[in-house]
Amino acid sequence: MKYLKTSFNKMEPYFSKNIDEGIILNANESPFNPPIEVINSFKESLEQFAFNRYPDMQCEMLCEAIAKHFNVLKEQVTCGVGSDELLEVTFRAALEVNDKVLSFSPSFSMYRVFADLALAKFIEVKFNDDLTFCCDNMLKAIKKENPKLIMICSPNNPTGAFLSEQDIIKIVECSNALVLLDLAYIDFADEDYTYLATQYDNLIVYRTFSKALALPSIRVGYAISKKTNIDMINAVKAPYSVTGLSLILATKAIENYNLYENNINIIKNERDKLYTILKEGGFLVYPSKANFLYLKLNDQIYNDLVENKIYIRKFKNDFYRITIGSVIENIELLKVVMKYAKK
Amino acid sequence: MKYLKTSFNKMEPYFSKNIDEGIILNANESPFNPPIEVINSFKESLEQFAFNRYPDMQCEMLCEAIAKHFNVLKEQVTCGVGSDELLEVTFRAALEVNDKVLSFSPSFSMYRVFADLALAKFIEVKFNDDLTFCCDNMLKAIKKENPKLIMICSPNNPTGAFLSEQDIIKIVECSNALVLLDLAYIDFADEDYTYLATQYDNLIVYRTFSKALALPSIRVGYAISKKTNIDMINAVKAPYSVTGLSLILATKAIENYNLYENNINIIKNERDKLYTILKEGGFLVYPSKANFLYLKLNDQIYNDLVENKIYIRKFKNDFYRITIGSVIENIELLKVVMKYAKK
Repeated sequence: MKYLKTSFNKMEPYFSKNIDEGIILNANESPFNPPIEVINSFKESLEQFAFNRYPDMQCEMLCEAIAKHFNVLKEQVTCGVGSDELLEVTFRAALEVNDKVLSFSPSFSMYRVFADLALAKFIEVKFNDDLTFCCDNMLKAIKKENPKLIMICSPNNPTGAFLSEQDIIKIVECSNALVLLDLAYIDFADEDYTYLATQYDNLIVYRTFSKALALPSIRVGYAISKKTNIDMINAVKAPYSVTGLSLILATKAIENYNLYENNINIIKNERDKLYTILKEGGFLVYPSKANFLYLKLNDQIYNDLVENKIYIRKFKNDFYRITIGSVIENIELLKVVMKYAKK
Repeated sequence: MKYLKTSFNKMEPYFSKNIDEGIILNANESPFNPPIEVINSFKESLEQFAFNRYPDMQCEMLCEAIAKHFNVLKEQVTCGVGSDELLEVTFRAALEVNDKVLSFSPSFSMYRVFADLALAKFIEVKFNDDLTFCCDNMLKAIKKENPKLIMICSPNNPTGAFLSEQDIIKIVECSNALVLLDLAYIDFADEDYTYLATQYDNLIVYRTFSKALALPSIRVGYAISKKTNIDMINAVKAPYSVTGLSLILATKAIENYNLYENNINIIKNERDKLYTILKEGGFLVYPSKANFLYLKLNDQIYNDLVENKIYIRKFKNDFYRITIGSVIENIELLKVVMKYAKK
């Protein structure tokens, strides 16, 4: 890559092979399509749709629907191509070269990439040994490193750990660093602290349509914060990044959030059931408030799953992440995994 | 914007008001929806569509269709959220702080924004007085400035000027600078030099589905170049940026390019007809190989158009850009503008 600038020499094209048959439990997708009412309403709106016009760059209809859902002002919301785009833009907007970013580790692997793209320093903060959040570790790191930005994912991907509201407030209040709170999996937890988004000058909350709302195909995420932070994102973000079709579908989805509740509850129940079975089977598995479980397996079990066309996500040191599938998919998964149970 | 980094202090949130009624001739959109065969085929594919799955991050189906259309390898193609995303990423991938970018001026206003986002120096090269391309000016500027990157838009937005193949080759061959050739409007010209994309180490061609293919709503553009340059873009670009629905529609569009030819010819004929009428009316209007005309008007004419709900694009110093509309839209436009004819 002759023309790639030297300060980007660690960037590499990242490609993962698309899987389109079998039981796909590797990408934290919902096993369910969105409610038929949402899909049908989308299809109806296609009849009048002007494919030949640019989408509304302000995503006004969607921002209004999100603002209404969370009881904030529409000026406190912006939308992007997944929360990924908005996170990446925030890193780039806020971070000068060599500024420091703190993040618990392991967490979503793209956070490090976003820091690299901003030429910032990415510093990892340890969880407790049982992979629960250690607020003290973060507070100490903040004091020591004086970061410009703090990245927190709760429930955390890939571990499923949940950071208490009290701890989030401690972290936000203890410095002027900008705290980015990625709540991609919050719909699967028992409480939601999105409301904090507009309470602090230094907090931005990120959410997505890709997980509980079952719309990763349309690539829409959003950020909620005080207007000045939303303005910052909009100043750096590309205009027109969210497609016209995505705007329609996402608006209909959030307006019909209640129709998703049944499927969300199924996923939560399945998660807790799977956790109990795997734990009773002697596996090292971690409590999760997301739509996945993080656990120790081994190559033999992984390969057996692949032979059965069941795909889960592999991490280093024999750690794996299993997305919660449908009831039937989870049974198929357990058929394989439980062959290796120790109890 | 307290948290915006100081090196970005010239960035501002950019918003243009969405217009959704009247005669919209301000955004170089096609007045026609895509062919009904393309739309119907898209709608049929929705029946089996997994909204709950991430799109193919490699855009394989679409890259293959593009590669086939242009007789290149699929490894020589990458797709993004409009050519905007791919251009912005290329600037950021190739340019270190204070590297120089040369661009003819006036051209697409986002090129300067892309340079600002890369913290690069944007240097304007003049057209001839009649707004035709001046290759000599560019060759002299290359020698003087030793740029890292050269941005060329042909047919040029907003002037409509066309750079000859011979001149492009001269510019590409005269230095090692990376030449980005934006061919967003090339379908409306009489010749196409996309084939050059894979002939030079230092040339990348950008094209879009937003203009002749009448799909700005779905935000898809693509780049064609040697594999090493495509790898560079992919190394910096966000994965999964093109939505699943956009991939389907764009693939069907390029596979059915021949169905667009009639509408493209209508637009070209209307453009040439409008040009002749305006010129005969005494207006200063420039020859165009795109789907728009660049001309001098004044505030009075502009305001009269707005009162008639006809929207064109205003530039500084009484320059305006009129997108070619449908036959009826163009008649409505002329009804207003020709009231001010001098002959």
